[in-house]
Amino acid sequence: MIYLDNAASTQIHNDVLDSMLPYLKEQYGNPSSIHRYGRLSRKAIEKARKQIASLINADPSEILITSGGTESNNTALRGILKKHTSGQIITSSIEHDAILEPCKKLSEDGFDVIYLPVDKFGMVKLSDLQNHISEKTRIVSIMFGNNEVGTIQPISEIAKICHDHDVVFHTDAVQAVGKVPIDVGKLGVELLSISSHKLYGPKGIGALYVKKDVSIDPMILGGGQEHGLRSGTENVANIVGFGKACELAKTNLSENITHMKNLRDILVQNVLNEIPQVSANGNLEHHLPNNAHFTFLGVNGEDLIIKLDEYGVAASTGSACSVHTQKASHVLQAMGFSHEQITGSLRLTIGIFNDEKEIKQTVDILKKVVEELRAVSPFKEKYSFSKT
Amino acid sequence: MIYLDNAASTQIHNDVLDSMLPYLKEQYGNPSSIHRYGRLSRKAIEKARKQIASLINADPSEILITSGGTESNNTALRGILKKHTSGQIITSSIEHDAILEPCKKLSEDGFDVIYLPVDKFGMVKLSDLQNHISEKTRIVSIMFGNNEVGTIQPISEIAKICHDHDVVFHTDAVQAVGKVPIDVGKLGVELLSISSHKLYGPKGIGALYVKKDVSIDPMILGGGQEHGLRSGTENVANIVGFGKACELAKTNLSENITHMKNLRDILVQNVLNEIPQVSANGNLEHHLPNNAHFTFLGVNGEDLIIKLDEYGVAASTGSACSVHTQKASHVLQAMGFSHEQITGSLRLTIGIFNDEKEIKQTVDILKKVVEELRAVSPFKEKYSFSKT
Ligand SMILES: Cc1ncc(COP(=O)(O)O)c(C=O)c1O
Ligand SMILES: Cc1ncc(COP(=O)(O)O)c(C=O)c1O
Repeated sequence: MIYLDNAASTQIHNDVLDSMLPYLKEQYGNPSSIHRYGRLSRKAIEKARKQIASLINADPSEILITSGGTESNNTALRGILKKHTSGQIITSSIEHDAILEPCKKLSEDGFDVIYLPVDKFGMVKLSDLQNHISEKTRIVSIMFGNNEVGTIQPISEIAKICHDHDVVFHTDAVQAVGKVPIDVGKLGVELLSISSHKLYGPKGIGALYVKKDVSIDPMILGGGQEHGLRSGTENVANIVGFGKACELAKTNLSENITHMKNLRDILVQNVLNEIPQVSANGNLEHHLPNNAHFTFLGVNGEDLIIKLDEYGVAASTGSACSVHTQKASHVLQAMGFSHEQITGSLRLTIGIFNDEKEIKQTVDILKKVVEELRAVSPFKEKYSFSKT
Repeated sequence: MIYLDNAASTQIHNDVLDSMLPYLKEQYGNPSSIHRYGRLSRKAIEKARKQIASLINADPSEILITSGGTESNNTALRGILKKHTSGQIITSSIEHDAILEPCKKLSEDGFDVIYLPVDKFGMVKLSDLQNHISEKTRIVSIMFGNNEVGTIQPISEIAKICHDHDVVFHTDAVQAVGKVPIDVGKLGVELLSISSHKLYGPKGIGALYVKKDVSIDPMILGGGQEHGLRSGTENVANIVGFGKACELAKTNLSENITHMKNLRDILVQNVLNEIPQVSANGNLEHHLPNNAHFTFLGVNGEDLIIKLDEYGVAASTGSACSVHTQKASHVLQAMGFSHEQITGSLRLTIGIFNDEKEIKQTVDILKKVVEELRAVSPFKEKYSFSKT
């Protein structure tokens, strides 16, 4: 199989797994225990916290470990808002459901939620933020890199506007961490979400960067772990793996970016050259290095994925999570795509383990599959598809 | 090292780790992905859900997978109460912090929380529940087996009282699952919390049994995983391991109980016989099979643990989590123990991997350590300790 769904999840790096194994075997102490076993687990967590912090140039004390990106996002919003029962939240119309769903709930609970529009490349406009932000705004949450089309937002400019208005800024950087250089100090964000399984670490673990002096309320209460901000016995092995994944991501960052970008560019160029009536989407200037997003006229994306799967390519229509809701992509809708364009879309996301041979094979397979599907497409006449 | 802190956490069973490895290696698909990788992960989760359900005789659709016992407890309370802004909660004075802390918060939020007292053996009285329960009661949450002293509550009798009043009953069974036979149908509970790492599974994963037709609100919102009740990409490997741990716990339940009970009884008998001025605590009739809890007069429990650690025995004063708060055991306080008794307490919890030789060695070491500490105890005169 050729795995090109790295935005959905990634393979655990061998070094990451190796780092986890002792904590899945003999070092099973509860980090809260006083004895040797406990102390070893505690130490391992604190080492991982440093590795995580280092990747985004934060202080280890600013890293709150959670069960993943979704919990990080929920904690950011709820954690800032809990003290309040009303006020305004500004987010974008292309956020992941892990922001949109909590926002929907908050709106039911009495908050006023503003969804900033995006242009056809998926970019928010700073002037829109300027126009809406006010003393009523409690938090702004705008994602770093989009999970479907890969568009990267102007994070430090957004942060600047927020600061001018004394508003806390959160960014969901789940798709960006490990794929673009991130320095939380330079960006000026207060809160930033990370997920381990998007960067060659294990699933079910993540972090929320919480800037020093920014106070949040905990969601999960109990034994007081994570300085009382996230109770529950720590997932030691996954934390250790997450830390290692962050260390590797930092060490290999520029090399990984070059590798992924190179393969992505080959992929996009070849698809555009070899397959007719296809467009590449997203903002190609401000774009995650591993994201390729296409629209194939007259083809159903789901059929495409199933066929690609049969031919040995793992791909996606967009957000992996959308299978639970079966709704059309809200991201493409916000970008002004027609229903037909949305239906015909395909996301291929490169990983560090992919190579050029796989990419070329994928283009060949894709060409064949698109031809096959177009041959039986109800839009056959409309677009005058012909077997080439 | 002799590990006798199995109530804090347990070693992952080899078969459990083996079951996890494929999902930490080549089967890294996001369960929400449509392609082969995704489908394999999805299937693995559904198999695990069956294994978890089977251990407590539930239907797989009644198993909500969480990040652990703490999240399960929080989800149970918040999930039932979210619709309400006031009302009464009945719990006990000896719950784990993963119940007490959410209750404290709920009380700040306007709920009326009743903490049932316990007798000197750690048992709640059914008449106390009878006296307090009313049409104002929104939920009753009473733990199954206590994590410090091992006392088991009359769960099905409590359930009956709750049902007579149409009140939802939750039990924190984190310490009980895998150590006593549990059949949710026979018990008549609506909600029951489980934690994987207490039963030879990995850390950071757990479940909440939610009886069919009992509706709860989610705490973590996003992609809609777990039927919308717990969003976030699933921790596939840990879920698989948790499932396997449940399967093993079911298969070996009576054998494990006999083994642990036998070792525990040897431990308690020998300690009582060989060490003077010591008492064994908890309700010895209704007692978790792996729990031994002692009070050594004139000895500081923390010193005891540090010394035992030096001599190669991993033990605890009680709840592992208490290190974060450094407060005296609220459980022993509720049982009417004096400050001195609380200070002198030690918890040894047996696991399936312990053997008789370890237990006998432990008694020898404990005898020596207690003697050493008593020789320098400030209570030396008071209790007329003498080297024996
Ligand atoms: C942008 C974005 N935010 C949040 C999440 C959720 O993170 P997790 O999968 O760790 O729950 C994802 C991925 O699913 C994502 O792509
Ligand atoms: C009775 C009880 N409830 C809840 C918990 C919390 O579970 P977890 O460690 O999975 O967060 C524990 C253990 O720490 C416990 O002993």
